[in-house]
Amino acid sequence: MQPTAADWIALALAPGIGPVRCGALLRGELDACGAAATVAQAREAVAEERIQRLLQWCARNDTQVLTPAEACYPAVLAMIPDPPPMLFVRGDAHLLTRPQVAVVGARRASRRGLADAAWIADELTRAGLLVTSGLALGVDGAAHEAALAAGGWTIAVLGSGPDRIYPQRHLDLAARVRQRGALVTEFMPGMAPAPHHFPRRNRLISGLSLGVVVVEAAEHSGSLITARLAAAQGREVFAMPATARDPGGRGCHRLIREGARLLTSIDDVLEELPVELCAGLKQPAVSSAEVSGAGPAQVEDKLLALFDAEGSVFDALLLRSGLDAATLNARLVELELDGRVAREHQRWVRLM
Amino acid sequence: MQPTAADWIALALAPGIGPVRCGALLRGELDACGAAATVAQAREAVAEERIQRLLQWCARNDTQVLTPAEACYPAVLAMIPDPPPMLFVRGDAHLLTRPQVAVVGARRASRRGLADAAWIADELTRAGLLVTSGLALGVDGAAHEAALAAGGWTIAVLGSGPDRIYPQRHLDLAARVRQRGALVTEFMPGMAPAPHHFPRRNRLISGLSLGVVVVEAAEHSGSLITARLAAAQGREVFAMPATARDPGGRGCHRLIREGARLLTSIDDVLEELPVELCAGLKQPAVSSAEVSGAGPAQVEDKLLALFDAEGSVFDALLLRSGLDAATLNARLVELELDGRVAREHQRWVRLM
Repeated sequence: MQPTAADWIALALAPGIGPVRCGALLRGELDACGAAATVAQAREAVAEERIQRLLQWCARNDTQVLTPAEACYPAVLAMIPDPPPMLFVRGDAHLLTRPQVAVVGARRASRRGLADAAWIADELTRAGLLVTSGLALGVDGAAHEAALAAGGWTIAVLGSGPDRIYPQRHLDLAARVRQRGALVTEFMPGMAPAPHHFPRRNRLISGLSLGVVVVEAAEHSGSLITARLAAAQGREVFAMPATARDPGGRGCHRLIREGARLLTSIDDVLEELPVELCAGLKQPAVSSAEVSGAGPAQVEDKLLALFDAEGSVFDALLLRSGLDAATLNARLVELELDGRVAREHQRWVRLM
Repeated sequence: MQPTAADWIALALAPGIGPVRCGALLRGELDACGAAATVAQAREAVAEERIQRLLQWCARNDTQVLTPAEACYPAVLAMIPDPPPMLFVRGDAHLLTRPQVAVVGARRASRRGLADAAWIADELTRAGLLVTSGLALGVDGAAHEAALAAGGWTIAVLGSGPDRIYPQRHLDLAARVRQRGALVTEFMPGMAPAPHHFPRRNRLISGLSLGVVVVEAAEHSGSLITARLAAAQGREVFAMPATARDPGGRGCHRLIREGARLLTSIDDVLEELPVELCAGLKQPAVSSAEVSGAGPAQVEDKLLALFDAEGSVFDALLLRSGLDAATLNARLVELELDGRVAREHQRWVRLM
């Protein structure tokens, strides 16, 4: 049973069903019975009319509702323990499936921090990666601006409803991100930002990204929380150094001591991202047209050729195949039913 | 057979007997026969008159000749693979047995580098450690100056003879280091500095020190060589970070990636130095008077009480006991003859 968009919306709105259970459902970790029961419970709890009202509001307000039923629900986000069953997107939702690197840091950034944020966002953009951040003052804003200035797209994840831009000083920036990127949030329309929203928001910033760059951060700051969440999600953490006695360097220096990669050049990022991805940025192993234009049998053979000997994560196959997530998933399920592939933990492995 | 001072001088002057063989001799790694043969070979090769002339020159020029026959030959230096059989010292040779931390870095240092060098030298001095460096322009000079300004002693290791101060601009600094510290070199009186002297000099800077702090360094600089030598000698390497794009930070950032400790506070140094040493800096485990004032039997019991369960390196015992190296060595040899301790690799272990 594949939940529909309405099912996922109900799961998001139903009390008592958290993103962790949604994640289990999303990754196929519940048996058919448990999955059906979870969806039924959600549909029971949430009036159909409420779902329709929400969809109508979104249609009227140029806001896309993105659920795992959509092809452009990002595969990397689906891999975190607590993926959101529903996201509101303003701008181009398809960008969410593109490889992203988060750039985060202090709101009260120093001139050095702002310059470093702009520099690395520019470099990432030129390397073909999307810059994802939180639209906050300071480092976040500098990163979004530099990505736009470099002619790139950028993704801003909000801690408020899609219609409630915060901070006010970034209203204009938000409008430009919407034009050349996407504003993303899991908070309901009309919801004001609140301090407890930001840790939830931060897990999405790292969850959407292959790696997180911390530019400048005090010793006990939200950016460090984002970095630790990122590490827990299996994402690479990069920290930019500062001079020894710069208080704004304390957070990054702590991260470096804890094992984050010291970042002094874009190569430090590119070297650590999955090899298949970096290859994909320059020249896809199999072009999207090549796989998607072929007949189903050919597609399956080509897909199987993309598997690593020890198996591959969904994401790697997604990037290598150039297929969208839903198509790839469908193909993999067919191959699984044919007994040609199997799931082992987080990987898909070839059986012959 | 314990070589005399004249033996060590002959070993230093004899052609074809390098510091590595001297090190083996010094650490008792040659059997009695091999040791006697090495010394005899050196005495044969070097005219007694030459040794006497050297000693006379030193006496007339207020220069101490320091060989492993002297108690103040530093135990940590004796542990490196290639310890010098002879050192010339101007100033207080006894300071060489004090715990030292080297501060090294770029000659063409930035203002940031100079300020960081002065800061860490000041902190080390206040923590009771001696700052050792190379009297060069830039970071070295700033470190020596700051140690003196903090009321401490400082040790400068030269790449030229004891009477040939280099660079000229540091003549005045050298005079003050001689008053409040020591100038040290293994190069013969009259020898001018030469490029190939500096790697040899650098091994002494790290060899005298428990750890080496690199303040600012280009990517391929002498300071990195010193740092790698230090690591090979088993000494801790600390590197001060800089901002991501500072070219003067490249060397330190590279060291950090290679495993050097990122240094942002004096505590980073103190935490990494041998625990027994740090304790010793604050309050000796057994005071010098306590051990040295006691009778031989009591001394031996007290000494045995200082051993770690898995054995202790000579240095640790030296620091814990407060004895001078020669006395400690004599006591350990007595205990060894009594069958109460044994040498195992680099450690002394209790047998009962």
